[in-house]
Order: sequence, then C-alpha cells, then structure tokens
Amino acid sequence: MDHQDSVDREPSFVRNSNLSCMDEDVLYHIALGNKSHDLKEMFSDVKFVCFGGSPSRMEKFAFQLVNELNYKMTAGQTLCNVAGGSDRYVLYKVGPVISVSHGMGIPSLSILIHEILKLLNHAGCSPSDVTFFRIGTSGGLGLEPGTVVISEAAVDGILRPYMEVATLGMIIQHPALLDQELNSKLIDVAKETDIKAVLGKTMCTYDFYEGQARLDGAFCDYTPEDKMAFLKRAHSRRVANIEMESLCFASMTHRAGIKSAVLCVTLLDRLSGDQINSPHDVMEEWQQRPQRIVIQYIRKQLGLE
Amino acid sequence: MDHQDSVDREPSFVRNSNLSCMDEDVLYHIALGNKSHDLKEMFSDVKFVCFGGSPSRMEKFAFQLVNELNYKMTAGQTLCNVAGGSDRYVLYKVGPVISVSHGMGIPSLSILIHEILKLLNHAGCSPSDVTFFRIGTSGGLGLEPGTVVISEAAVDGILRPYMEVATLGMIIQHPALLDQELNSKLIDVAKETDIKAVLGKTMCTYDFYEGQARLDGAFCDYTPEDKMAFLKRAHSRRVANIEMESLCFASMTHRAGIKSAVLCVTLLDRLSGDQINSPHDVMEEWQQRPQRIVIQYIRKQLGLE
Repeated sequence: MDHQDSVDREPSFVRNSNLSCMDEDVLYHIALGNKSHDLKEMFSDVKFVCFGGSPSRMEKFAFQLVNELNYKMTAGQTLCNVAGGSDRYVLYKVGPVISVSHGMGIPSLSILIHEILKLLNHAGCSPSDVTFFRIGTSGGLGLEPGTVVISEAAVDGILRPYMEVATLGMIIQHPALLDQELNSKLIDVAKETDIKAVLGKTMCTYDFYEGQARLDGAFCDYTPEDKMAFLKRAHSRRVANIEMESLCFASMTHRAGIKSAVLCVTLLDRLSGDQINSPHDVMEEWQQRPQRIVIQYIRKQLGLE
Repeated sequence: MDHQDSVDREPSFVRNSNLSCMDEDVLYHIALGNKSHDLKEMFSDVKFVCFGGSPSRMEKFAFQLVNELNYKMTAGQTLCNVAGGSDRYVLYKVGPVISVSHGMGIPSLSILIHEILKLLNHAGCSPSDVTFFRIGTSGGLGLEPGTVVISEAAVDGILRPYMEVATLGMIIQHPALLDQELNSKLIDVAKETDIKAVLGKTMCTYDFYEGQARLDGAFCDYTPEDKMAFLKRAHSRRVANIEMESLCFASMTHRAGIKSAVLCVTLLDRLSGDQINSPHDVMEEWQQRPQRIVIQYIRKQLGLE
C-alpha cells in the first residue's frame, strides 16, 4: 500500500522520514512536545494504550486501573490529565497503561493516533511491545444489548474493508485488519470473566443517523422497510455491530505494525430500534464490560494473577 | 438531491416524516429530549447558533456574549452547560444565542447538527429566523497568520464541492453551499471592526496530517516538493484555508434551508510550514477574531447599536 512500509525496516511507530530532520515536534492536540517535555522519561515504559470516545469514561477508567493493577501512587499525589494543556482529548498514565479519549468519529481519532504514534516513538518504545485497544460503544445487530463485540475486521458504510485517505489528490486505501490471535485471547478472557462477548465484523460509518440507517435523524429519505432490508443484509454478512471509529483504528494500527483490538459493547439492537434510551445505570454497567475484559487481559500480561 | 427536499414544503428544520410519529425523541449526545425537557419553553427564542470545535472556547464565548449583548442575568445565577448530562459537547444559551462545541471532524459535527436541528424543530423555531455560524481555526494558504477566512464555499480534500454520505448502500452527494449575502455583510462587519478578513474557498479534510499534505504526521509517503505542488495548485484554485468541518456545516445547513456562514482564523501559513507553534497568547487573540465579527453581526441584528 505504502512505499515507506516496504523500505523502512527498522522497527518504528512511524513511517515518515521527515520526522528525523525536525528540530522540534509539537504534538499540538495533546499539548505535549519533544522539546517542552522529556517524553522518554515520561513514557518509555508504556505497554498498553486504551482509547475510548468519552473523556469522563477514560478518566474513570484510569482510576479503575490504579485499583485493578495495584498501582502504587506516590503519597500526596493523584492522577492528572497529562494532555491538560489542550481541551481536545484527556490522557492519563497509570504505570505501563495510557488511557486516552478520542472524541467521536474517524477524523478525531485519526489526529490522536498520529500524535500517540509520534509520542511513543519519541519515548523510545518498541512497536512489538505495545498493544492498542479501543473500548467503546456501538449499536448491535441481532444481539442482546450489553453484549460485547470484539471486531474480527472493520468495514466502512458500504462494506469495504479499508479506510480511504485523500492524500495529495489521490484516494489511498489502507486495509483495516486486526489481530486474530489477540482476539481469541480476549474471547477467552471474556469467558473467564463471565461477560458475553462475540466475534464479528464491525461496520464503521462517518454519520450516526443516515450513515447507520437510523429513522430518527433530522434527515431521512428512506422507509422503515428500506432500513430493515439494509441492516438485515449487513447482518447476514457477519456485521455484528456499527460504530464510528474502528476502520481508522484498525487501519492505522495495522499500518504502524502494532497489535490492536476493538471491543465495543452494544447499547441497543438496531434490528429492534434506533433510540438509545436504556436507564443510565444499566448503560453504565454495560460500558464497564469491554473495560473489564481489557483490564483482565492486561493483568494477565503483567503477571498479576 | 433529496426526494424529501422537494415534497416537504412546510418550513421545517427537519426532512424526516418519521419524526412526527415518534412518541419520544431523545437527543442522546446533548442529553436533552422532548419528554424530559420542555424544549419550547427553553429554546423557542433562539435566533443564532454558534458552533466551534473546542468546549472551553465555546464556554468562554458564551460568557463574552453575556457582556457584549448586555444580557441581564438573574441575580444569584450564572450560565451552565445545558448539555451537561453528557460529556460529548458543551451547550450554552445566552438569550437568543446558542454557543455549542462540536469536537473535531465531520462525523462529530454531523451528530451535533442532526440533534440541534431536531432541537430547534421541537422548540418551534422557524428556519428563516435562525442563522448558524461556525467560528473556528484553520491552516491558511498564502495568508498572514491571524487572517480570518469567510468561506464562499467548502470543498473536500480533492476539491469536490459536496459532502458524500453513505446512505443504505448508496453514496449520496450533498452540495456544500453557503449564503453569499450573509458573507458580504460579515465582510463589512469585519472592516468596521478592523479585523483582516477575506473571502475564499475552504478545503475540508477527514485527516489533519496526510489529508492536509502535512510532512509532520506519523505517516508520510510524499516529498516536501509534492506537498508544496499540491498546496500551490489548491491555492491557485481559490482555496484560502484548510480545516475539518466546513463541508458538513455547509451541506447540512443548505439541506435544512438555514442561512449559515463559516469564519475561521488561520493559525499558520501552510505554504511556509506545518507545525502550530505560535505563542499561546498570540493564538488566543487570533481565535477571538472570528468571534468578534460574529458578535458584532449579532449586535447589529438585535439593534444593539
């Protein structure tokens, strides 16, 4: 796909020869930089990066990690948002784990992944030692709400298995592949943790309403029958859930050569409705499920069992 | 473009006949709803909706409106984030003006516009009485940083003047048109306010790094010469600046039949560099400029001069 991919053999998070010539690299949207911060000192021990849409959910997740990983906080200290100099994302670090919010949609996630890859590169981490997770929410197809879908692959809104990036007048296609070995380990962890999880394809769209065949957006020029026919055809082709970031997550991590997985809980069954209106506390518990699987996986990797 | 557009003649913010059959409409991402809230009572007086990417900037803008519009606050009260039940966006209301953050990129903005259009519809506002503004930041082409670009039209990363929405297996193209009469009034206001503003086309991309021909992303498989050739060709076709939301903003407001304008300050000249590293206070002042133009325009419309 990418000329650099084949010639740049040194393991690296980045595929950009211009970076080594830059005197300073400002990671603008996370308010960090290789001159303003000692990124090696701060981040060289990172082994896991957990991405999720909501800033408050990723803050809570960070504090949960403190407990679950028996992470010893220094007396008189608490976690802080390392990206606090900007209000675009929040970023927390708990020992070897980063918890970071990505906002909604591919462009917002794409900016963040570029800057996280550069961050890990400046920090001197090794791509083979780092795993990326997206823990999020989605609409399910034919699944009981609360089920976690672990993505075997991501496809776009018309079922194409790649992300297109308009690059200097060309539309370049980047395949959205995920790690099947990691996926099968996560399915095992879900079983041990008693969380219902399934493997399936994830449809990733650029629009929440028309892009996901909803009848409840400001615009809709199709019928309920059109909607159901479309969703059922997608379902019959192994699409288990629909969200808005997996295509970018899978294609950018694949391109960088990093192991990654996407785990999204389903908040509703789109074959039964469009509106998200389950009680707040029920949805809170559901949103914990992908997090609990990832935490348990990390605990095992760190030998905490 | 849209079958509904031609048959639905009653003035309305929405083009969706399913909405009238819905018992309840939960505006999930702004944590409002037509059952949980009296949207008519809360929002029927809205005349202007100002969108910007950053939540803290849109909060500050709301407090600025209080001063600039001589808005009388009730004793013992202050502004609050009306969408505070969710952490996806912030939404403030200052009399007839809404100030709302949209995050980064088309998908994040698209969700919000769907829900704002439904909100105004529930509130019983009239589309001909409401104006939408996007006040944001961008990279300029051949302009002194700090210049405000008022978009005469939005184009995508390969210069197509429409937004594509994958809708039930079809890629539908929605033209990204803006209001030239409103634009010329805004240019006049900028002159009176002594802010350098120009009209030009705005390129809207789905990616901040490769999509905008930057050399400083995690991935880059083109040369500095390729980059300059592309940006110069775009510049010669009247592209004055590059950002990530205008295409969606223009096409969705056009589709809803609402007057709208996009005003973005340029934080750097992309013909000279890629990194955003001007001093914080300088950028703060620049980001005020589109806001000052919009405030002055609103003051005039409200007869505050």
